[in-house]
Amino acid sequence: MNNYKITIQYDGTRYKGWQGQNSTGLTIQGKIEAVLGQMAGHAVEVIGSGRTDAGVHAKGQVANFHIEEHFTEGKILSYLNHYLPDDIAVIAVEQVDERFHSRYAAKKKTYRYHIHMGEISDVFERKYEYQYEKTLDVERMKEAASYLIGTHDFTSFCGNKKMKKTAVRTIYEINFTKKGNDLWIDYRGNGFLQNMVRILTGTLIEVGDGRRAPEELPQILESKNRENAGYTAPACGLMLMEVHY
Amino acid sequence: MNNYKITIQYDGTRYKGWQGQNSTGLTIQGKIEAVLGQMAGHAVEVIGSGRTDAGVHAKGQVANFHIEEHFTEGKILSYLNHYLPDDIAVIAVEQVDERFHSRYAAKKKTYRYHIHMGEISDVFERKYEYQYEKTLDVERMKEAASYLIGTHDFTSFCGNKKMKKTAVRTIYEINFTKKGNDLWIDYRGNGFLQNMVRILTGTLIEVGDGRRAPEELPQILESKNRENAGYTAPACGLMLMEVHY
Repeated sequence: MNNYKITIQYDGTRYKGWQGQNSTGLTIQGKIEAVLGQMAGHAVEVIGSGRTDAGVHAKGQVANFHIEEHFTEGKILSYLNHYLPDDIAVIAVEQVDERFHSRYAAKKKTYRYHIHMGEISDVFERKYEYQYEKTLDVERMKEAASYLIGTHDFTSFCGNKKMKKTAVRTIYEINFTKKGNDLWIDYRGNGFLQNMVRILTGTLIEVGDGRRAPEELPQILESKNRENAGYTAPACGLMLMEVHY
Repeated sequence: MNNYKITIQYDGTRYKGWQGQNSTGLTIQGKIEAVLGQMAGHAVEVIGSGRTDAGVHAKGQVANFHIEEHFTEGKILSYLNHYLPDDIAVIAVEQVDERFHSRYAAKKKTYRYHIHMGEISDVFERKYEYQYEKTLDVERMKEAASYLIGTHDFTSFCGNKKMKKTAVRTIYEINFTKKGNDLWIDYRGNGFLQNMVRILTGTLIEVGDGRRAPEELPQILESKNRENAGYTAPACGLMLMEVHY
């Protein structure tokens, strides 16, 4: 059995996410499975490293698929890029060990959230940033973020109320980069719950604009109650940058 | 009479250009005039610094319009950005002298052409670059470009065969920036003829991939014949960066 690992970029604007919550609508995974099915002449199941929400983008999503037939890596790369729509691209294909599983083998993930502060947003960036009209106090946000580093139960930052599995995750780093009116927040962790990066960002924004104190973060974590955290920042500002193996 | 200078960004992908060649179809100027007409309650004529071709983008197009009524700069800015589609943005509004004319007063313009060499193109860049599968020899292109600097009759590089006005223009600089597989060519001149930057780029590409010698450039200029220059590089790679006053 051949097993191929593929690295994927997408502009998530018009998609219901990597995979539909109830398998309906346009999804990235669905598009890739359709093209691979056409190439192989039979259904191919694609396993993603994790779901991204509707409207979230990716520069380095990873997936894998098993297939009886052998195709060269170059053939798969050009076939996919020829038939995929313009807002999805496969940037690497690698034949890997039969046991490689893109979700189970993922060690870390890096997400980037882009906030543009101010009234005017750049035409070429606006689909990939969250325009926030007020100026945020980045030092306060950094202080709040410091309480999130480490291993915690992130139930308060999970958008799925019915989740039954553990909500314990480790965040290794949260880095802030500010350039003019643009602010990028990079989150690196061993995994993220549904909507987690967006709720973390919404909460940090509420700290940055003065609505919350940085010292509230430990209580929010301890409460294990989604109601106590901030709002869910919009999907368009979020980008899955890299899955680390 | 009030005169306002506006600076405009646009993703030209779905437009017939700044202004239609025969006033039909979707144009950037048409969109802006419609919104200003709605704001003023009567027709408003917008004068652009120059036309951009169908599919060409802009980070710094400039236009002006005269209007009897007085509006604050802030009001015009927010009104336009509120009603313009997402692929057009007004990034500055300035009330200027009544005699200011965005075309006649323009001293220089800077255009940037983006070539991406290689099979795979970035999802977030592909609408704004020309994907060229071969690797170009940038040193040869620089040598060819050196013959274009200065004041010349650019008839050979003009896409409009019926042009009756002078084709004499001055190019001050052509700069090349290469980073990995990406190549940006910046052209600064006192003005550019129809399709001129795209034909210059197509000709430089033919030099860069070995189809032409750099030394052919002076003959091409002297011949004053469009047939002797290279092909017209695609519109999507071109961006009007700045109009200098």
